[in-house]
Amino acid sequence: MYQQLFTPSVQHTLDLIGIFVFAISGALLAVRKNFDVFGIAVLAEVTALGGGLFRDLVIGAVPPAAFTDLGYFVTPLLATVLVFFLHPHVERLQAGVNVFDAAGLGLFCVAGTTKAYDYGLGLTASACLGLATAVGGGVLRDVLANEVPSLLRWDRDLYAVPAIVGAAMVALCIRFDGLTPLTSGLAVVTAFVLRLCAMRFHWRAPRAWNRRSTVLETE
Amino acid sequence: MYQQLFTPSVQHTLDLIGIFVFAISGALLAVRKNFDVFGIAVLAEVTALGGGLFRDLVIGAVPPAAFTDLGYFVTPLLATVLVFFLHPHVERLQAGVNVFDAAGLGLFCVAGTTKAYDYGLGLTASACLGLATAVGGGVLRDVLANEVPSLLRWDRDLYAVPAIVGAAMVALCIRFDGLTPLTSGLAVVTAFVLRLCAMRFHWRAPRAWNRRSTVLETE
Amino acid sequence: MYQQLFTPSVQHTLDLIGIFVFAISGALLAVRKNFDVFGIAVLAEVTALGGGLFRDLVIGAVPPAAFTDLGYFVTPLLATVLVFFLHPHVERLQAGVNVFDAAGLGLFCVAGTTKAYDYGLGLTASACLGLATAVGGGVLRDVLANEVPSLLRWDRDLYAVPAIVGAAMVALCIRFDGLTPLTSGLAVVTAFVLRLCAMRFHWRAPRAWNRRSTVLETE
Repeated sequence: MYQQLFTPSVQHTLDLIGIFVFAISGALLAVRKNFDVFGIAVLAEVTALGGGLFRDLVIGAVPPAAFTDLGYFVTPLLATVLVFFLHPHVERLQAGVNVFDAAGLGLFCVAGTTKAYDYGLGLTASACLGLATAVGGGVLRDVLANEVPSLLRWDRDLYAVPAIVGAAMVALCIRFDGLTPLTSGLAVVTAFVLRLCAMRFHWRAPRAWNRRSTVLETE
Repeated sequence: MYQQLFTPSVQHTLDLIGIFVFAISGALLAVRKNFDVFGIAVLAEVTALGGGLFRDLVIGAVPPAAFTDLGYFVTPLLATVLVFFLHPHVERLQAGVNVFDAAGLGLFCVAGTTKAYDYGLGLTASACLGLATAVGGGVLRDVLANEVPSLLRWDRDLYAVPAIVGAAMVALCIRFDGLTPLTSGLAVVTAFVLRLCAMRFHWRAPRAWNRRSTVLETE
Repeated sequence: MYQQLFTPSVQHTLDLIGIFVFAISGALLAVRKNFDVFGIAVLAEVTALGGGLFRDLVIGAVPPAAFTDLGYFVTPLLATVLVFFLHPHVERLQAGVNVFDAAGLGLFCVAGTTKAYDYGLGLTASACLGLATAVGGGVLRDVLANEVPSLLRWDRDLYAVPAIVGAAMVALCIRFDGLTPLTSGLAVVTAFVLRLCAMRFHWRAPRAWNRRSTVLETE
């Protein structure tokens, strides 16, 4: 059982922090899209819990953690209330939210990879599910809001790569029997710092090697 | 086993009515979006069965009822045929469809909550899944049709709240050992009447408390 | 066990070919939508594996094949690399891609139906899941790219019908105890040829019988 790398209460607190910041990002998008208060709550819940829900369905961990832990369900509602009443202030704190979101990304990619491995998946599949845990909620958020997922867009700073690196580090540690709270924490921090750097220096991924093509211009 | 509150045949008939009216709403949207006959059938099936399918995947009831009961599958096809040949008439009957849709909302939120509790989920989680059963199909319908889910939009009459109230009533009844066909039927009727009132009086939910913000205007 | 109609290695090779051509179609859409390289990879994976993933979740085959077979995961990445570097050439080969995609459609609807039946579903439900296996990836691809699924649009050549015919042939063969590699291959070929004909002769499905309606014009 790698899943409890940290003591349960530490792990649970970290999970709730990740859920809270993801929920804030969902609630803010809902406000921007002019949704009502229930729309804000739904988008907060989906953003915060969607990635883990997908992972749990795939690995057969039913009912998923999102439906068995009351704290997981209530936390996004707190984020909803906060955004509902304070959203101009929350928006002014966007930079802070982004830092927390980067922390959530790091925590979720590591926790997702470890949980998937505990349920018997291979290392590559576990790393994929770690990535899906970290980015899945954001993709669902954008699909429900009827926008192109920002994960896929070339004009956004790198988001998937930090999570891929974090998940891959965990998979490599498991492979070489070196997964400890220390290495695990190191993976979280690496993903976190990479994401911060990507935002700070506007790292972007290349688009298709299409210089000889005129397709994009004519579309 | 709370799931069979009514006699099986009554429950099954109620389920089929709910499925039928939800399928009509999906098929009508497909016609508005100019889909072909297969698109109409797909949207009818998804709207009618999507919410229950999501619930069954989450609670681990596989294969889901949507795939084990032939009646559940055939009913949306009947709705497809009806809308395909008669859709100007069906549209003229929109008010009637709305009443049936409200009935479907009430039936599904109660049946969904009860089934989730029977599969061992907690009361809050069961109520959430009851809500998801009732509104999930409509959300999937709108996502497939590439529209913002009407559930989330502020300019639509309240849809989630009646289902939340119905699901919460069932959860409270279970909590205090009072779930009988009578209280269960009362929850259905409450959700149904609340939805009718919401449509009649155009009840809407508030948007974010944003009077000091200029964000919405500048977007 | 009908699932291994062909020898395992033949079946596996056919699966990988189907996955590869579906991935190409996803990657090409990602390039058209101007996604970055990770967006291309995500869309390739989703298009190639989404249909089978949905089927496996529904029939309770967890973890799904997409996460247990490394070849299933790597193949879409190969398609991503190919499209990333060569996409003007791949686009010029669109006709060829379409032929392979038709082959994938035939293979997946037959394999999906057989696998669902092996997991204990009824014949109708198995045929539905065969259809979902064949077309589900494409629907997910279009939803993630924020487009109306081409499956649903009336102005696209028939796509669902060939898969429905193939899946229904398999279900009928099972019903009359006649499912052999020969009849199974015949179903694949039938779906394949029907799809080729639909593209060649621009077969389309009718829209709603709406000549007396003015709704579409006023939308």
